[in-house]
Parts: sequence; C-alpha cells; structure tokens
Amino acid sequence: MSQASFAPRVQPPYYAVIFTSQRRMGEADSPGYAEAAERMAALADGQPGYLGAESARDAQGLGLTVSYWRSLEDIRAWRQHAEHAATRDHGRSHWYRHYELRIAKVERSYGWDEADGVADPGGCAAAEPTIAAFSAGRD
Amino acid sequence: MSQASFAPRVQPPYYAVIFTSQRRMGEADSPGYAEAAERMAALADGQPGYLGAESARDAQGLGLTVSYWRSLEDIRAWRQHAEHAATRDHGRSHWYRHYELRIAKVERSYGWDEADGVADPGGCAAAEPTIAAFSAGRD
Repeated sequence: MSQASFAPRVQPPYYAVIFTSQRRMGEADSPGYAEAAERMAALADGQPGYLGAESARDAQGLGLTVSYWRSLEDIRAWRQHAEHAATRDHGRSHWYRHYELRIAKVERSYGWDEADGVADPGGCAAAEPTIAAFSAGRD
Repeated sequence: MSQASFAPRVQPPYYAVIFTSQRRMGEADSPGYAEAAERMAALADGQPGYLGAESARDAQGLGLTVSYWRSLEDIRAWRQHAEHAATRDHGRSHWYRHYELRIAKVERSYGWDEADGVADPGGCAAAEPTIAAFSAGRD
C-alpha cells in the first residue's frame, strides 16, 4: 500500500511534537483553516530537522497531529518562525476551542505492513517483537 | 468546553505510545473493530500506570492513537496483557493494512483553552509560553 500518510522511519532518538486539538465546528467557524494547514505543512517540510508528520481529524473536529524533528533546537526554530507564530495566533482566535501540546523524545519504534504477513498465533511472532527487541528503525 | 476527548494533564516526565494506523476500509473488511477498540480502551483504563489516551481517525481510515503511561514498565505490562496481545494478532489479520508505533518520553507539555483567551498579538503572549518556559502540567 501507499505509505504517503506515514512519516518515514527514522533511527531513534528523535523528537515528536504531539498536538491534540478540538476545532470549532462548521466551515463558517473556521475560515481559511484548510489552506493554512496545507501552508504550514509545506513550510514545516522545508525546516531544518523536520522528519515528517502524521495527522488525522475525526468528524467531531478532534484531531491529532504528530510532527517529528531531529532535535529540540529544530522544534524551537520552527516555533519561532514568524509565519508559523502568526498562524498560531490566528488559530487561537479563529479555529480552536482547546488544544494540548506535548514534546516527547522518541526512544523506540517499529512498524508493520500487511506485506509482512501475520505471525503464526502459536509461533514465534516474528512480526511482533517483544519490547526488549524493539528495533530502532528496522529498515 | 468538555475535555472528555483529551487526556488529563500530568506532570512530565511520562511516556507516550504513538500508534499510527491505516485501517482496511469498509465495515465488511473490519468486523468487530469498533467493539474491540472500545473493549481495549476500557481494559487499558484499568491498567497500572495508565494516564489516558487521545485518538482520531479520518474518513480515509488513517488514525492516530496516543496513549500515556507512567513508565516503560507499565507499557510493557500492557503489551503483555493476554487479551491485548490476542486483539493485536486479530488486528493484523483483520483490520490493519499498515501501522507504525513509537514509544516516546514526554518531557514538556502545555495546553490552551478558549476560556484562556487570546494573547494580544503585540503583547507578552501569556497564552503561548516560549519553549524555555513550557510548563510541566500547569494545573
């Protein structure tokens, strides 16, 4: 399958910015949101240390966006980017009801694809490593 | 507003499990998914060290679920929970096309609510602390 919606696998450690937000609902309540989100994604993509992002929003307007960065310094620089700062201000006054933001250091990661197959339930579960064997970016 | 969809604020450090997944689409392709997701959420809620979770899935079947835990040991114990393990096996064979899982240590966090108001764009941006001043669970 296409993995365009997944951030590339990167060797830990790196950083995640977990942004959980509740949007005001109705397009009339959120003018310019889609365009701004697209613009911010393109702008982030050009920033030093940007590793990718994953995002989903449900029909009730609750969304999670996790962006990945090489270092805290890269996150700080993106935070201080003037157009990003202006868009955040606009978001608080126009788009959001509530948000939570967490900065976290990714220590372990792994993935699975249907092409990997499904482990024998009674077998060695090769597709499901134990936590002790978490691969750090296995490909 | 109700914050039922947000995990409670907790003083860092703590851990986040970031689970990004692409579901097979169509209810016929995902029998039992909704019930199992509800059951896993209830089961996690009773686990030692569980701090909460946030989740969203879009209309294309891409979803992010971030669960929060006190320690890596708590994550390991949940991972080894027999019913959880069986549900993961079932998920790979029935519900998912692809997933990525990352374990990350939350180092900083803050939030904003519309009740906090919007900072004066030219002012001191009290609602938007600088990265150096990230509060560690400000309430």
